[in-house]
Amino acid sequence: MVYADEGMWLFEQPPTKQVQEKYGFELTPEWLQHVQQSSIRFARRGSASFVSSQGLIMTNHHVGARNLHELSTPENNLLENGFYAKTFDDELPCKGLEIFVPVSSEDVTEKVNAVVTPEMSAEESQKSRNAVIATLEKEASAKESNQGKLRYEVTTLYQGGAYWLYGYKVYNDVRLVWAPEQTIAAFGGDPDNYEYPRYCVDCSLFRAYENGKPAKIEHFLKWSTDGVKDGELVFVSGFPGKTERSYTREHLEFQLDVYFPYRLQKLYRREVIYSTFGNRNIENQRRIADDLGSVQNYRKRAVGQLQGLRTPSLWKHLPRITPAKDSPEKKIMNACLTAYNGQYVAYDLFELGEAFNCQTFKIARMLVRLVYETEKPNSERLKEYRDGNLESLKQTLFADTPIYEDVEILKLTDSLNLIRDVYRGSWNSWVPVLDFDLSPKESATELILRSKVRDVAERKRIAEGGIKEIKYSGDPMIQLALRLEPIAKKYREDYENNVEAPITAAYAELAKKRFEKSGTSVYPDATFTLRLSYGAVKGYKEDDGTKVAPITTIAGMFDRAKKQKFKEPFDPPKSWKDGKTKLNPATPFNLVTTNDIIGGNSGSPLINTKGEVLGLAFDGNIYSLSNNFVYTETQSRCVSVHADVIIESLRKIYGADRIADELGK
Amino acid sequence: MVYADEGMWLFEQPPTKQVQEKYGFELTPEWLQHVQQSSIRFARRGSASFVSSQGLIMTNHHVGARNLHELSTPENNLLENGFYAKTFDDELPCKGLEIFVPVSSEDVTEKVNAVVTPEMSAEESQKSRNAVIATLEKEASAKESNQGKLRYEVTTLYQGGAYWLYGYKVYNDVRLVWAPEQTIAAFGGDPDNYEYPRYCVDCSLFRAYENGKPAKIEHFLKWSTDGVKDGELVFVSGFPGKTERSYTREHLEFQLDVYFPYRLQKLYRREVIYSTFGNRNIENQRRIADDLGSVQNYRKRAVGQLQGLRTPSLWKHLPRITPAKDSPEKKIMNACLTAYNGQYVAYDLFELGEAFNCQTFKIARMLVRLVYETEKPNSERLKEYRDGNLESLKQTLFADTPIYEDVEILKLTDSLNLIRDVYRGSWNSWVPVLDFDLSPKESATELILRSKVRDVAERKRIAEGGIKEIKYSGDPMIQLALRLEPIAKKYREDYENNVEAPITAAYAELAKKRFEKSGTSVYPDATFTLRLSYGAVKGYKEDDGTKVAPITTIAGMFDRAKKQKFKEPFDPPKSWKDGKTKLNPATPFNLVTTNDIIGGNSGSPLINTKGEVLGLAFDGNIYSLSNNFVYTETQSRCVSVHADVIIESLRKIYGADRIADELGK
Repeated sequence: MVYADEGMWLFEQPPTKQVQEKYGFELTPEWLQHVQQSSIRFARRGSASFVSSQGLIMTNHHVGARNLHELSTPENNLLENGFYAKTFDDELPCKGLEIFVPVSSEDVTEKVNAVVTPEMSAEESQKSRNAVIATLEKEASAKESNQGKLRYEVTTLYQGGAYWLYGYKVYNDVRLVWAPEQTIAAFGGDPDNYEYPRYCVDCSLFRAYENGKPAKIEHFLKWSTDGVKDGELVFVSGFPGKTERSYTREHLEFQLDVYFPYRLQKLYRREVIYSTFGNRNIENQRRIADDLGSVQNYRKRAVGQLQGLRTPSLWKHLPRITPAKDSPEKKIMNACLTAYNGQYVAYDLFELGEAFNCQTFKIARMLVRLVYETEKPNSERLKEYRDGNLESLKQTLFADTPIYEDVEILKLTDSLNLIRDVYRGSWNSWVPVLDFDLSPKESATELILRSKVRDVAERKRIAEGGIKEIKYSGDPMIQLALRLEPIAKKYREDYENNVEAPITAAYAELAKKRFEKSGTSVYPDATFTLRLSYGAVKGYKEDDGTKVAPITTIAGMFDRAKKQKFKEPFDPPKSWKDGKTKLNPATPFNLVTTNDIIGGNSGSPLINTKGEVLGLAFDGNIYSLSNNFVYTETQSRCVSVHADVIIESLRKIYGADRIADELGK
Repeated sequence: MVYADEGMWLFEQPPTKQVQEKYGFELTPEWLQHVQQSSIRFARRGSASFVSSQGLIMTNHHVGARNLHELSTPENNLLENGFYAKTFDDELPCKGLEIFVPVSSEDVTEKVNAVVTPEMSAEESQKSRNAVIATLEKEASAKESNQGKLRYEVTTLYQGGAYWLYGYKVYNDVRLVWAPEQTIAAFGGDPDNYEYPRYCVDCSLFRAYENGKPAKIEHFLKWSTDGVKDGELVFVSGFPGKTERSYTREHLEFQLDVYFPYRLQKLYRREVIYSTFGNRNIENQRRIADDLGSVQNYRKRAVGQLQGLRTPSLWKHLPRITPAKDSPEKKIMNACLTAYNGQYVAYDLFELGEAFNCQTFKIARMLVRLVYETEKPNSERLKEYRDGNLESLKQTLFADTPIYEDVEILKLTDSLNLIRDVYRGSWNSWVPVLDFDLSPKESATELILRSKVRDVAERKRIAEGGIKEIKYSGDPMIQLALRLEPIAKKYREDYENNVEAPITAAYAELAKKRFEKSGTSVYPDATFTLRLSYGAVKGYKEDDGTKVAPITTIAGMFDRAKKQKFKEPFDPPKSWKDGKTKLNPATPFNLVTTNDIIGGNSGSPLINTKGEVLGLAFDGNIYSLSNNFVYTETQSRCVSVHADVIIESLRKIYGADRIADELGK
């Protein structure tokens, strides 16, 4: 039997048999341990790896972008201009950045399940499990390991089929070493996002420090000197975030018929409305850029996922059964039906706030809830207002980020129109929260311009004022959020009780059965823990028959730029245009492989059988978007930056021989 | 009482009283006759006027664009480069272009209604009326008038309250004299469409010829030498296309809840999908440009109209009544309810073809219908396949316009997704026409790539082959169109019988009542016949309070371009950038007035009390889009090119003193 290159495998339960049979390569315990301990979880954002004995860290430019943003000054935007530290001393410390190296793991399933007795209710079982998990994490963290103190986390695998205790070595002095300009890191921008051929140097380098000095690293990945061959066996080691491969047919049908069409309806309209606003002038463009970029990315992803769901081959592996009464499948079916018949949309609009999609409303809602919830005993509060979460909630609430009135009016007008489009004739029941004496645009204008909560001092004043300050507030957005509360909470309760909880419980039940049958011969759904994927360097065919070669070159990038008349986002940075003659045009740029990856894998190293770096995974092609539900080898591809273009540009564009040398080439 | 500047008035029933009372100006019969006979219907596309005794015709660049396109060669794209004829001999004849000057009119209501007897059914009445109308048109056209032979058309006014026989002098030798570059004609492109301030020279000049010489014109509009004053009384004389001001509350509610949200849902997704395709590369951009431009324009219009419908003030003039049984209002309500409950959407998707939105399907459908319908007696055919319409239908069907496979796949994939989004779980009933073994993209790819009907010769072969050729065709798109026929025709019949017909009949009934009560003291809905609108030069306030001044300048255009870094569509043509220093920066560019206009008015002259040209209407602002339903003077504005910028650019940019002199300035 030949396996597809499927799976996000635990290092503890590697696909040894599959890789041996298909590729004739043996995954030894040493190889696995070395790769595992060279792998890094970069904050809670993505993946990375150690690439030198002196703590050099490689990740994606888009994974490190937040740090580049935070290190920028009004005079020097590091996202635009890139950055290179000529010496160790020039490397820039990233405040608050932590990276996690997985150094130990232990199966604690029995310990966790030992506290559960058959007579416990589902809620009691969960409570007991949570308690033992907290104890396990605390006890382990208190111990000194041979790598110093570790941070421990218990992760639920197989939807409750297993529990694993992971120990991470944490580095919290991490410094920026090098980043190219955004225009080459994300060359092709939204038009080329999730597409291939690609030409992105989506890479940045950081360095871990210990005691003020570059960290001494035992396990790091060497740079390959062998190049990449078509068909070659390759691995990706990283932290895939979340997959939903155990979804039942009925659950996928809900996603197919309701979730994605509704989500896309919102995204399409926003993309048009935000673009139109941005195209009016350059200042508008700047103000809306983040919102627009994120809408475009979500839209492309949703289109790809829906396209996957509408591909019949995806459904072939799902049995068409009539679920028995009281079976978990039946429970999922019923919960999906409840969601299907409007509960999901109502929850999304009124509790998740999509009906009032603007910062001003989000702030007003948080103020109202902060004041009312903190009046209650901790255990009775909405979970995001419990003591453990309050600190970070307040940080968000009182952050002084710029909010633009015109963007707020634009977004709120759109959402007020959205409610009316969705509810059509029946929105009259929204009289308590909608203003029928004004048009959506007029209401939005009044609400935004009259609200004062965009002022941080005012927010603090209201929060300190407590319930009276909220109840008798003259701020119309506070008043709106307050009037909305009973409606929103009702929808939340309905949704959590009738949809979320039964679905979660039913999947746990299903997973348990499946786990009892197959054990660890199958891989668990992604959970943002370290996984290994194997695959090969391999082109593919587009739906219309066009053949796509696996590797692009520097010449190809300049060719694409030229054909696009060097218009944004196809205009490489000045450094590349000036340095063009110095570059070897045949240098490989990006490549595609059959590895099974998903969001969270961004920044993972692409490795050969020697455990050496061949590249840096940064994206999937459009077909890979349905990896969420099922992996198909025919067209789904992982897209990586080729190792060679990193070295070539470090040396010839950025004058960073120091770093290229350190990478060992 | 002070009237709003409302109304698209018949020249035969002018707003003499209103203009006298509000502005103290008397509309004399001479003034009216002069303006009427200076006005032109430009083909069936828009409005225009005579502006010299030598047959010079002024219209919008966008109205004449089709002729510019047809006169372009691979070497010289007149839309891009503009055009100027240095001498009469250089003026370019426009093949097939006809312009219509309204020179006579006669109320024939009595003659038309005389043939109807009370015992006739609605259908019989209509047949008799159509017969007498055909006779009236034929008899009048046969007569020689003092202006030679005229072309006569009977127009239904007041939804059947009145019938008028219009006589048009037709010029069919029309030549292109001057057109600026598209980049200044439509400066600001989609982002500035329906917005203000504006800076467009949306103007082109043609000339009517008779017997190979410039036509001698008695009635033409002189160029004003007085400039334009804020608050000044102005008129627009032109051919507004269609308004729906007599819609009942229930009908508007259908538009508000169903028609526009559904239409926008389609437009938003198409705009995103077409843009995404276009942004991938420059060739894509070229291929999708027309589709994208038209979607953007429709979307902006629909957003504006829906915004108008969601403005409560619009509803204030509509009585909230409980319609009596058998009343026309009740009939409209019922028909709308039928449309509301799915019939409209099904009709739109399957009969209007939005479910298979691509050229290949349109052609296949036409071939199927052409063959089957022409087998039937003329009177039993679908109306577009009756003898009178066959010639133009065949012209469309056999035209060799470029069709791109990739664009076709893109559009068809989107529509196949649209059906599934709209019908959600219940699309299983579409098994006869949808392929459930392939994804929408895969089906679309197969259907498009395997169909041969994009080849004109193949189309002709199939059409000549008759029913056998259709029935046993191996072309999958022909087969799809054939399988769809019973479904599509059923929806068409349902919609026409249960929605369209009862609504039309009920409005005629309503209109008759209203006409009997008010007669000609109110103006009829727009019908693409000549109308006069009065108003004043006047700025307005945006919803957020921003004041908008009524007149822009050349300096303002350059300033906008500079602020937009001269990026498309804000990059004026080279001729303007090179000639900038020669231009007087204070020259007025565009201006807004309170005139009540709508689509079809494009190209209308803006006239002062002396009957002189002040400008050239080319657009409305975003608030004017609800003029379709109701005119509101507060923010709704007509946007015109100022006469001065036309002269300034003719002389200083285009070296067209010959023409500027002819315009008398």
